[in-house]
Amino acid sequence: MAPPIGIPRGTRDFGPADAVRRNYIIQTIEKVFHTFGFLPLQTPAMENLETLIGKYGEEGDQLLFKILNSGLHEQKNKDTIREKFLQSLERPLHTPEITDKALRYDLTVPFARYVSMHRHDLPIPFRRYQIQPVWRADRPQKGRYREFYQCDADIIGTSSLLSEWELIQLADTVFDSLKIPAVLKWNHRKLLQALAEHAGCADRFSEFTLCLDKWDKNGKEGVSEEMQKRNFDPGVIDKIILNIETIQLKFKENNPVYPEFLSEYANGQQAIKDITFIQKFLNTNPLNHIRFEPDFTLARGLNYYTGFIFEAKAVLGDFQPSILGGGRYDDLTGIFGQSGLSGVGISFGLDRIFDVMENLNLFPENLKKTHYAFCLGLFLEEGSLTYMAKFIQTLRNSGIPAFQYPENKKLSKQFEYAEKCGIPYVAIAGGTEMNNNQIQLKNLITKEQKNLFTTDALQLITKEYEYFQHGKN
Amino acid sequence: MAPPIGIPRGTRDFGPADAVRRNYIIQTIEKVFHTFGFLPLQTPAMENLETLIGKYGEEGDQLLFKILNSGLHEQKNKDTIREKFLQSLERPLHTPEITDKALRYDLTVPFARYVSMHRHDLPIPFRRYQIQPVWRADRPQKGRYREFYQCDADIIGTSSLLSEWELIQLADTVFDSLKIPAVLKWNHRKLLQALAEHAGCADRFSEFTLCLDKWDKNGKEGVSEEMQKRNFDPGVIDKIILNIETIQLKFKENNPVYPEFLSEYANGQQAIKDITFIQKFLNTNPLNHIRFEPDFTLARGLNYYTGFIFEAKAVLGDFQPSILGGGRYDDLTGIFGQSGLSGVGISFGLDRIFDVMENLNLFPENLKKTHYAFCLGLFLEEGSLTYMAKFIQTLRNSGIPAFQYPENKKLSKQFEYAEKCGIPYVAIAGGTEMNNNQIQLKNLITKEQKNLFTTDALQLITKEYEYFQHGKN
Repeated sequence: MAPPIGIPRGTRDFGPADAVRRNYIIQTIEKVFHTFGFLPLQTPAMENLETLIGKYGEEGDQLLFKILNSGLHEQKNKDTIREKFLQSLERPLHTPEITDKALRYDLTVPFARYVSMHRHDLPIPFRRYQIQPVWRADRPQKGRYREFYQCDADIIGTSSLLSEWELIQLADTVFDSLKIPAVLKWNHRKLLQALAEHAGCADRFSEFTLCLDKWDKNGKEGVSEEMQKRNFDPGVIDKIILNIETIQLKFKENNPVYPEFLSEYANGQQAIKDITFIQKFLNTNPLNHIRFEPDFTLARGLNYYTGFIFEAKAVLGDFQPSILGGGRYDDLTGIFGQSGLSGVGISFGLDRIFDVMENLNLFPENLKKTHYAFCLGLFLEEGSLTYMAKFIQTLRNSGIPAFQYPENKKLSKQFEYAEKCGIPYVAIAGGTEMNNNQIQLKNLITKEQKNLFTTDALQLITKEYEYFQHGKN
Repeated sequence: MAPPIGIPRGTRDFGPADAVRRNYIIQTIEKVFHTFGFLPLQTPAMENLETLIGKYGEEGDQLLFKILNSGLHEQKNKDTIREKFLQSLERPLHTPEITDKALRYDLTVPFARYVSMHRHDLPIPFRRYQIQPVWRADRPQKGRYREFYQCDADIIGTSSLLSEWELIQLADTVFDSLKIPAVLKWNHRKLLQALAEHAGCADRFSEFTLCLDKWDKNGKEGVSEEMQKRNFDPGVIDKIILNIETIQLKFKENNPVYPEFLSEYANGQQAIKDITFIQKFLNTNPLNHIRFEPDFTLARGLNYYTGFIFEAKAVLGDFQPSILGGGRYDDLTGIFGQSGLSGVGISFGLDRIFDVMENLNLFPENLKKTHYAFCLGLFLEEGSLTYMAKFIQTLRNSGIPAFQYPENKKLSKQFEYAEKCGIPYVAIAGGTEMNNNQIQLKNLITKEQKNLFTTDALQLITKEYEYFQHGKN
């Protein structure tokens, strides 16, 4: 009797076809991270509950995957742990006996935790990238998973805008390398703060940004509705929406003139100063590939952002999935007792990027099909197996993926297998070839077959493999 | 008030210095996997409890990290879930209301689960590699962690010994690439079965192999003791130990003659046939780097092994940590209702390999120190920032890691930072350099400083970076 087989809801297996292409994206991003002077950090999948609880809002706390302590079955006092269990559902931090660990929810909090623990050993500003999965007990739906990968790069320990500039260039380089048409939208939290001050709702800033977040999905009507629901004054609502539209319009002009009211607020002045700095860089060092556009409706849910905020969208007609998010935070490590470290970071969403690249057919030619190897050594007869093994090993030594078909089956079956594995060349050798130090080489696409000395066969395959990887010419 | 900070017991952060070197090991292994015709598979960190429970023995079940179901706090009937919780500690499979998922314990069971689910879509024999972390609630101790990485390669769907041969060569290639002196020990489960039959304890085979496993640690006395404890007949014990020593001796000779009694048993005949096949390959296609040695005390705990079994040890004087394990299994997917798929696999232990390489100082020269970048652009004055940004971006476009120091601090501070980051070159540019299209380049090791046109500076750094990565010769 076989038990049912499956995997947890909202998780996925990545078989060879997908895994190879996901690795291609990761390697491309990783290479760019390296050239920008970021080194990797890897943190454990599990973090202490204290590290995570309270960092993602109430909703976030409920989305943590908590891990049952091990050894609970050995506990003598069953009554106690039974009661503790009920308590743990309401107040998890007070019942470390039941669960004291959870899977990480993002890479930002573990990063802040790491920096706080090692501040005095790290070069400050500290630059790290991190490419790891995160887990959220969200309701699974199309494009939303319970296990997914984030690719983060952060610079912490400086408030210099050179860091923002570097990350903008980094995004440009990544999307250029992956050939993804993208627009990087930006806003500034201090500009939004000045807007809120001007409209007279600065005391409800975080609520206001929550409402503003709906603009993307439901337009200004959605924002207005949400603000009404939350009892914002109708005058305030109108003023905010009008101002956002005005600024938006101004910025579409070639030489934007900031609305005067902005400079009446310290926050507004700071935002303008920051924006001017970045614009100077954009004018002298233009971006290569992406569009860089203001979007004053961009709010980003997370409250720790304090300066520039970013979001990149892939440009695919009407559907523009978000493939990057980030921004400046002034005191992320403060929650762990280490204040005074301003930072800025961006996070690429691997799963969305994968979907976009599939959708636009952007993977390189040699990744469009799955290729287990470039040459398969056929099983002709027992007597020539070690001879073939030698040839195959020669290919591998030259970096060419190859292996032997392991069973003495009809050649037609072995050809079928090669095709199913996406292997373009097969090598054949029996007694005659052995005696002449030869290999029969067959190209399964052109059907061309050649008898070659092993050294010539190696040379031919090496050349063809070079073409295969990098394209002819 | 700062909450306490730390990470769960038995887990580790890998900061840049370690993460870079772990990635080097992974990339080296991955590259070899690819040239041997293996493609990646990635499975979720969480598996359904049904998939895992009962696959690792009773002890293993208790070492699973179980995940609390989400949404439990919303359950209306508190009494029910309180009782279910207690039950879940004893019979987890009967209480999916509390926990129905756990973190994977190894990569083999998820692999068998995947193959069982996709058997009819996969090319059979199916070859996959998998490099991912696994989790075990073991008591943490030196060299034993609760989160660690396995690097597995398996061929499933053929009983051909060519697969064993490929994996032996693969191990040889990996340890050669990493320069780890290693011995690959082998045994054959069917040879052990013949031994058990000969000694008259075939009905207690799996217990016998459990006892045999102590030989490595406690010698034959340890095995004898353990067998006595388990009430094996003293005659049986003596016979077994004598036979193992005899076979061991025979095999140390140049032309091993198998003890006659082996061929009296079908299992013994099969083992001899298999061993002869592999020896033929070894004679014609000798290994490059590792020693390949019989060890008839090798048993390997896991009961699913049915043919050749392998274990590699690093050769570091007295201390010989195990860095690879594996073997042939005849029916791993049978537990998931898919019989008839024999397979063979090996698993490299990343964490042990890392320790060995540290210990023997085997990392390549450019990984012995941590280098955040190869060139740091200094902050001389606000006016030349965009000029420096252009130069830095030119370096990056040539694949050279570089970034700008973000703050206007004393040059001595910036030099210090470069040194702390392991950056060998700094670039300096002020008004004069800008006007002449030049860059001042300083090598922090030789202290040499040069004024160069930007194109010449790029050329110099490119050449030096080439040396840095591949060594001068």
